[in-house]
Formats: sequence, C-alpha cells, structure tokens
Amino acid sequence: MTARKLSCAIPVPSDIEIAQSVKAFPIVSIAEAAGILTSELNPYGSTRAKVKLSILKRLESSPNGKYVVVAGMNPTPLGEGKSTTTIGLAQALGAYLNRPSFACIRQPSQGPTFGIKGGAAGGGYSQVIPMEDFNLHGTGDIHAITAANNLLAAALDTRIFHERTQGDAALYRRLTDGMMNFTPIMHRRLRKLGIEKTDPKELTAEERVRFARLDVDPETISWRRVTDVNDRMLRDIEIGLGRAEKGTSRRVGFDISVASEVMAILALINDLRDMRERLGAIQVAKSKAGASVTAEDVGCAGAMTVLLKDAVEPTLMQTLEGTPVLVHAGPFGNIAHGNSSVVADRIALKLAGHDGFVLTEAGFGADMGCEKFFNIKCRTSGLKPDAAVLVATVRALKYHGGIAPKNAPQENLEALRTGMSNLIRHIQNIRKFGVPVVVALNQFTSDTGAELALVRELAIQEGGAADAVVTNHWSRGGAGAVDLAKALIKTTDTTPSDFQLLYPNDMSLKEKIETVCREIYGAAGVEYLNSTKEKLADFERMRYGNFPVCMAKTQYSFSHNPDLRGAPSGFRVPIRDVRVNCGARFVFPLLGDISTMPGLPTRPAYYNIDIDCDSGKVTGLS
Amino acid sequence: MTARKLSCAIPVPSDIEIAQSVKAFPIVSIAEAAGILTSELNPYGSTRAKVKLSILKRLESSPNGKYVVVAGMNPTPLGEGKSTTTIGLAQALGAYLNRPSFACIRQPSQGPTFGIKGGAAGGGYSQVIPMEDFNLHGTGDIHAITAANNLLAAALDTRIFHERTQGDAALYRRLTDGMMNFTPIMHRRLRKLGIEKTDPKELTAEERVRFARLDVDPETISWRRVTDVNDRMLRDIEIGLGRAEKGTSRRVGFDISVASEVMAILALINDLRDMRERLGAIQVAKSKAGASVTAEDVGCAGAMTVLLKDAVEPTLMQTLEGTPVLVHAGPFGNIAHGNSSVVADRIALKLAGHDGFVLTEAGFGADMGCEKFFNIKCRTSGLKPDAAVLVATVRALKYHGGIAPKNAPQENLEALRTGMSNLIRHIQNIRKFGVPVVVALNQFTSDTGAELALVRELAIQEGGAADAVVTNHWSRGGAGAVDLAKALIKTTDTTPSDFQLLYPNDMSLKEKIETVCREIYGAAGVEYLNSTKEKLADFERMRYGNFPVCMAKTQYSFSHNPDLRGAPSGFRVPIRDVRVNCGARFVFPLLGDISTMPGLPTRPAYYNIDIDCDSGKVTGLS
Repeated sequence: MTARKLSCAIPVPSDIEIAQSVKAFPIVSIAEAAGILTSELNPYGSTRAKVKLSILKRLESSPNGKYVVVAGMNPTPLGEGKSTTTIGLAQALGAYLNRPSFACIRQPSQGPTFGIKGGAAGGGYSQVIPMEDFNLHGTGDIHAITAANNLLAAALDTRIFHERTQGDAALYRRLTDGMMNFTPIMHRRLRKLGIEKTDPKELTAEERVRFARLDVDPETISWRRVTDVNDRMLRDIEIGLGRAEKGTSRRVGFDISVASEVMAILALINDLRDMRERLGAIQVAKSKAGASVTAEDVGCAGAMTVLLKDAVEPTLMQTLEGTPVLVHAGPFGNIAHGNSSVVADRIALKLAGHDGFVLTEAGFGADMGCEKFFNIKCRTSGLKPDAAVLVATVRALKYHGGIAPKNAPQENLEALRTGMSNLIRHIQNIRKFGVPVVVALNQFTSDTGAELALVRELAIQEGGAADAVVTNHWSRGGAGAVDLAKALIKTTDTTPSDFQLLYPNDMSLKEKIETVCREIYGAAGVEYLNSTKEKLADFERMRYGNFPVCMAKTQYSFSHNPDLRGAPSGFRVPIRDVRVNCGARFVFPLLGDISTMPGLPTRPAYYNIDIDCDSGKVTGLS
Repeated sequence: MTARKLSCAIPVPSDIEIAQSVKAFPIVSIAEAAGILTSELNPYGSTRAKVKLSILKRLESSPNGKYVVVAGMNPTPLGEGKSTTTIGLAQALGAYLNRPSFACIRQPSQGPTFGIKGGAAGGGYSQVIPMEDFNLHGTGDIHAITAANNLLAAALDTRIFHERTQGDAALYRRLTDGMMNFTPIMHRRLRKLGIEKTDPKELTAEERVRFARLDVDPETISWRRVTDVNDRMLRDIEIGLGRAEKGTSRRVGFDISVASEVMAILALINDLRDMRERLGAIQVAKSKAGASVTAEDVGCAGAMTVLLKDAVEPTLMQTLEGTPVLVHAGPFGNIAHGNSSVVADRIALKLAGHDGFVLTEAGFGADMGCEKFFNIKCRTSGLKPDAAVLVATVRALKYHGGIAPKNAPQENLEALRTGMSNLIRHIQNIRKFGVPVVVALNQFTSDTGAELALVRELAIQEGGAADAVVTNHWSRGGAGAVDLAKALIKTTDTTPSDFQLLYPNDMSLKEKIETVCREIYGAAGVEYLNSTKEKLADFERMRYGNFPVCMAKTQYSFSHNPDLRGAPSGFRVPIRDVRVNCGARFVFPLLGDISTMPGLPTRPAYYNIDIDCDSGKVTGLS
C-alpha cells in the first residue's frame, strides 16, 4: 500500500495548515495500490478520481473485507470527532498495521461548511486531503442532485400550469409535437395507462385526455425544491406570484439538498438501472382521482438520470497517511438517512478483501444514522456488518451528565457516570441488531485517568461493549489509533456478528415507527399529530406499507426534545408529518420541531474563509 | 496539430449519433498540440481539463493571434447555427488550413438544454465532444456560480433577520465570538468604516453599532437568488413565511444562473485577485441612510471566491476534428452579456500566436452579445478585435422578410430582399466599431443559387461586408467551411481593424442607453418607466456613472418587441427597470417585457432525453 507516516507537531496546528503541509500522492498511485485499474478511473485533477461501477463486475467473486460502521453518541456542542475517528482508524489499519483499509465517508454539504459546523474532512492529523476540494464542490455530486431535484420541481409545476391554461386538444397537440409522435419516455406513460398505441392520431378522445392530463391535486404535491445553502428564508415560501403565472401561486418550501429523496436514492442504488427505475418511481403528488403521479409521468426521470450519470460513481481520495477514501452520498443523519452509499461500500469491501476493513460512516448519534444504516441501508443492500465503532469523549459524556460546556475540562466522575447512560443505551441499541461494539474514546488533554477508566468499565460491563479503547489520532494520526485498530481486529476475529433487522418488512408503518421510538429512543409512546394517522393509512392502502421508516429527529437527544440529555425515558414522540419516498422506498416521519432546512448563525464560518490571491490557497476553512 | 478529418454520412445523422461515433483524443494530446504544459492542466476525466491561469504569465511576451468575434443576425425559430459556425470554422482553420485555431465558447445552461433549445455543442459535423459532458455539468462552473450567488443571498437575508431579532449588545457579542476577535474579513469592514482598531473590546458603543448593523433598507435589496433550471414559478415569490422567520417575509425572485452578476464577473476578470475584489464590491442593497451595502459588508466575499477558485480556469475540450476549444462563462446574450471569458480569450490568443486565430462567440443577434462584446468585454480587457464573422441563413432572412416558417423552403427573392435589412443593419452596426465583417451564409438544401447570390451581393454592396461566403460545415465538417476560413484569413490580412468603442466612459448613463438604442437598435427614442430615471440619477450620484450599460432585451428583434422583424425603426424603447452591478461594473437596464428567468414549453427537450442503462450512453440529447 502507498503509505506515509506523519511527524506530528505539538501544539497541533489548524486543520487547514496540516492539510496544506502534506503533498497528496497522485490519485492514480492510490488507486493502483488499492487494486483499481486505470481503466476504472475517471480522474478529476490529480488528487480525486471517480471509480466506475464496472469494477463491481470484475471483482464479483472476490471475498469481502470486514464491514464496520462508525457511529457516535448523541452529539454535543463540544464535538466528538466521528469523521476524525473514521479517518484516523483507517490510517492506523492501513499505514501502521498493514491491513487493506478503506474509509467510506459522505461528501460534505456546503450548508454546514459555511454555517456552524465547518467542513467534514476529519481534523488534526486525521484528515482527507486535499481538504479544500473535499469540503467545497467535491466532484459535483451534490450539485447534480440539486439540478435533478429542481428540474423535476420545475417540470411538475410547469406541467400543472400548461394543463390549467390549455384546452384538451391544444395540450395533446403540443405534447405530441403536432400529432407527430410520442417520445420513448411518453411510451412508458402510455403503458402505465394500458394504452397500447404508438401513433398519436390513433388514440381515442378519452385516451388523449387520460394521457395529456396528469390532473394533479395541488393539495397533494409533496415534491420540494432543494439548495445546498443554509437558507432559512426559503423554508416556507409562496411561488408563482408573477403576472405571467396567471394565479397559479402555491405555498412550498426548499430543503437542504442532502436531505432530498434524490440523495437518498443515490446512496441506496445498486447500479445505473436501479437509479433510473427509482427516479421514475418518485411520487411527486396524487391526481384528483387519487392516483400516484410520478417523475415518470412528469417525463423527466430520464433527464434526471442523465444529470446523475457521473454522480453514481464514488470518488476516490486519500487520508493524510495515504490510505484510500471513498467519498459518496451525503450527511445529515437527522433529516436524511445520512449514510455513505451502498455502491461505495460494496466496491471498498471487494477491494479490501479477506484481511481488509471497510469503515463506513453513519451520521450523528447512533440513534439516527446507525439505526438507518441497519434498518434501511443494510436492509436494501443485504450486506451484513461485522462490527460497530462507537465514538465518544469524556467531555461530551459529562455534558450529557448535566454539566455546562465551560465546566467540561474539570474532572467530574459523578457527571460522567450520569452521562454514561447515553453511551450505554447506544451500545445496547446496536447489540439489539446482533453487532459487536467497540467504543472509541477520543482523548482530550483534560481527561483524567480515573475518567477514562470509568468509561471503559461501564461501557464493557454495563453496556456490553466488546471493548473500549482510548485513542489519540487527532494529535498523532494513525499512530494514535493503533490500539483502537487492534481492538477492532481482535473483536472481528473473536466475536462474530449475528446481524438482524429491528423489524420485518411486513410490520405496519405505525408499528415500525413505534418500534424505533420504543426500542431505540426509549420512548413511552408516540402521538400522531395533524393528519399523520390518516396519511399512514393511505400509504398502507397505496401498498407502501412494506417500506422501512426513515425518521427525522433532532440529533441532540434520544428524544425529539434537544434539551433532554443522557438517556431520557417516559416521553411520547410527536409525529408532526409523514412523507413517502417511493423512489428511495421509505416512509419519512418528521418528529417534533425538526426542520429540513438549517439556518445560519450570527457569525457563520464564512467570516473566516478567504483566499490568498498570490498563492491561490484557501484560508480559514475548518 | 492533432487533427482528424471526418468522413461525413449522407443524410446527416443526429447530433448525438455523430458525437458518439467519434472517439475523442486524450485531452493531454490536445493540450500538448496546443502548447499547454502538463503542469498547466487539471484533467477532469480523459476528455476535459481546466487550464491554469499561470499560463498567461508564461506566455506574457508571445504575440497574440487574430481576435475574431462570431455573431449572428437576429435569431428566428428556424435556427441559424452560430455555435455550429464557430466550431466548423475552427475545424476548417485547424484541420484543413493548418492554422492554430481556438474556439472560445460558453458553457451551456441546463435551462435551454432541457427546455426549448437543446444543447449548445454545435451541430452535425461541427461539434464539441464529448457533447454530453459539454451540455450537462461541464466542469461545474455554473454550479459554482449558483452556489456563490445563493450563499450571498442567504447570508444577506439571515443578517437582516439577526439584526431584527437581536439587541445591539447581543449582536455585537455574537459577531465577535464573545468579544474575542474580529476575523480578517471583518477587518475589511472596519477599514471601510474608518475604524482602526483590532480588539472588539476597544470599540466605542457608537462604533460597535456601526460595525454590527448593516441596517439594510429592505426596499433597496437588489440581490436575487439564481438556479440553472427554467423554473418560471420562481420568477416572483415571497420568502420567509415560516413561523420561525418571525415575520421577515419579502417579495423576491430567482433568475437563471447564467444571467447573474457572478457569471458576468467570471467572464470579465483578469485573475483571481480581480475576482476577489469584484465579488467584494457587489452591491446587494443600500442602508437606511443610503450607503452602499456590499458582499464584503455581508462577510462572504471570501467564501464566494473560494467557491469559484476552480471556475476561474477555462476548460479545454476539442472539436470533432481535434481542434482545441476553450469553454468558459455562460450564454444568454439577451439578459446577460453572454460572452465567453476574457481569460479564455487571452489564453487562446497567446497560444494561437502570430499565424493563429481565436474565434470567440457572442450570444444571440449582434445587437445583443456582439454590442456587449465590444462595449463591455473589450472595454474591460483592452483587447482589440480584428474581425467579426456574422452568421446568417437564407431561410432566416426570408423569415425576417415576413414569410411564415413553413414557407421557408420555397425560393422567395422578394422576402429575402426585405429580410436582408436585418443582416445589413448588423453589418453596418459592427462597422461602426471599426471592425471588418465577413458574412457566413450557412447553406440549406432548399437555398437556391439566386438566393445565395442576392445575399452575397447585398451584404457586400449595401452592408459593406468585407466578404460573404456560403458555408457547409454542418453537413461536411471543417471541409465545408474552408472557403469561409480563407475569406477570414484574407480579410484579416488585407483589411485592418480600426476598433473604437461606441461611447466613452464619461458619457452619462442615460446617454449611453440612448446611444445604444439609437445607433444599434435603430430606435427613435427611449421612455423611462417606473422610477428608472431616478434610479439612474442615483447611480450617477453613487459614482457608477462611468460604467457601461448591459442591455436586457428580447433577442428576436432589434427592438424590444419580438414581433418586429427585419430592421424596424421609429419605435421608442421602454426602460422598465435598471439595476447596478458594481462587481461586474455595468448598469443593467431591462427593456420591455424581457424576463430574467425562462419558462419550459409544453413539450420540453427532456421528453427525449434518457440513458441506455446497459451502455451508460445518453440518448436524445440534441
């Protein structure tokens, strides 16, 4: 393997200083060392390359590596370092223990990059490089998703406009190019309608109307526009107020792009055909007669697939120590499934092979991204995880034990013991899926020996973790995560996974929601607000009852209330809305006040970000 | 030079069939043949590469090639083939006449690609390849522009929200991270305010308020959001209707991305520093006290530059016959300046050298893109064009002579003579700038010998064109444009350009608008609607009076009325609105009913577009 060992400075410089101090290996060398053929690579500059899905065919009969999900405790304002751990652990396995190792991580959203959180390349001496390219446009996947999503939105609204303002004959004539022809995409709709004719002139008057009029019920439109910017003013808007739009105004909203169904689809597909079919199946609204109106009916699922033809390929990058990283799909495990893609994981598993490891990241606390990793992503892919790495810090655990952030540096075993309830519940939750857990305890200089020992003791004895290991990859790179890597190897060698889903496909949607709330969140029950009960019943009637559920909930608590730290219980979860994603194939309940479009704080990250015009170097990105 | 001569089929296959039938040369070979060093290249896949601006430094002392702008008559529903001519002429010069030749064209917008017009890669045997990559995301420049534009919009609106909902002390404390520090970006604002302090604690109460409150007058906000989708429902919208936005709702609108000021800036800059300064200078609103509020004040001009750091580099691609093409900036000469970039032209001019040619495309009719090429782009760059190629067809000229499109194939010398008024005025207009004109007459099979002869005669004798040549590059590739290429070479050898601007910088904005309307459009006068007169006076007061004007007008007529064909006169142009682009450094008048956001027709191009899931090939793109 291509590998570099770092010499780490003390004190640890800023993320971007470290990232810019290391010259990345040519991406073709990383690819070659990883077993990727040059013909399977599409380079983007010298440090990034798309990997073609054809590699899966070539490696079909190779054995898989160990499949490890990296998850976290509930995040706090103090930062826990889940991405940093994913990268640091990959560096330890690859650069120090000589194991083929791949980190499968998500492309960051520009929302957090310029908002509160900053970038997502890891931190300190455990980073993906070049971190600027990683944190900015990547290889354009999120932009492609935004474009495809918003093409469908415009196509739907414009179709409604044209149906409203044109008579049957004119509408049919224009759609068929003056009665000349149907396009292949129109043939799909004709088949759906059971019309077996190919000449526009041959349709009966009734068939013409059925073909030309989607007859959308505006009240049922569920398709929303997206942008990859934290633009709170677009959460609730009214569109179509122009004179030329002739009174077709409507209340709609923008979501952040990474929370879109198109992103969810990208992460779950097996290949291009799967993508094409799922995009066509997206339900955007219902007709006045109650029929499903899909992207296929609107006529732009082909164009959407074309827009996404490069985005289906994961992007190969590298860690600071030269281990391979596959970047694909998007974050936001709170309001999306927030997992890297199935195809990236599959490629990495084949490349890793018998002795290797694939570390795939699941967003936010294990109650969010990791539950969805098991119940949605593994359900879809059929892949079985071998282990979970659960990231925690002493400071964050004390915060969950009730202390204020400013008191985090002081030893407080009492608060720590209280806050451990959070970590213990996460460990127990993951064990419900039959997966062994290794706790990664990211060390800070303020942590005391007694605190570290207490976490280890409780995690193993009360939580049932296979191991719990102190790790220092932020300040020391892969060298700081060697103990963690060894613990992971030992666990996967000695503790076989017995993976099982939390609920079967044929459980009702309500029972699925209630199962997750009870078994994972620790809730006493669920309250269905607005007309969510009726919507769920409608989904069952429309035969979406066998979909899993993708919960949208605050990431800060097991509950829907961000202020409830630790391991709350006794609460009842309010289900505020439910949406169905027929292309991604899940039902999407919104719990409590969760928003699908973040805002910007008073002092966002962009106040720090600039460029040095002489060198072209980015400054202040973190 | 790398060159390939085509064997052309009859009848001519579809654009995408031709494009997919030719295997592109590796882009590194194209670069090498063009004189670009490998170290000056950033490959995107094997067929596209960004060219670093450092090449301009290396070639500083090389002689420039001939600088030729390719423009058109007013477009008609029949299509004239301006991009096709740009590409075909480059193929003729490069592959047949052995002259270094570069086509500098714009990245297409996804609006037209999926809307009415289709792609913009040229057509027939004169195309840029791979046409799918060219027509879809390119190398991501337009997406980067959208991201930068919308980050500023969100930043501005969120700042207004935070100023409204926070008291002076809280606002100042949050902006300074608890009185800890100012970021370098904040130092720029402090300097603008004349505050020479660097510690947040040292500012007086009055200084704190001045620093923290942009105090935007909501009525003056001129910054709009953009998307690269034809989404008419976003033309006029109301944002901020959510409960959490606390009554900050506002009427706004989306423009198509390519018509944004950020795109205009990208096309006009000399280097990264110029970009950084111009982005900072963008005026987004005015304060209640009447001061200019800029992107720099809002604090995200650095982040915007970072988002655009790759977009400043033009993208190298190739024609079907292996001649180099530089793709940069965006189209829409009607509602933008619609020209390729200054940096792309400069790079091409240096690479072309003494014997070479640079063909740079100006959007829509010569009254739009070409007027702006001279008055805005050449004014900014200081480059002097050597010649103009003006594209016309017999069919389109007959349309301007009053016939219906369905009658275009029939010989009609009377209509042709009438319609020639359109072409003649364009020739005469360009000659007002001192630039010799070669007319390229794109031949169709229905054109008769008498018709072709009449166009040639009138163009030269009445218009004063240096030459007028029949051309067949659509059906024959470069071979079909050899005569045109020879005429261009002869013209530049024998007829020196005497380039001059139409108006000086120090003419008033009103006079500039009136000069363009009178001298280029043939108008009798101008009418200032709404409060455009007051706005222009305000711009003069704010010292923007020395900017040129970038007119937004229908492309279909010399006038503001798309139905007035030929060379109308006697009309008065209504100025409906004026905006100022302080970063792009022009004033932007909107004439008549022109919209800055196109719509989708009843049967958009996407009904034809799909993907073959087995081969991964795109189908139906045109």
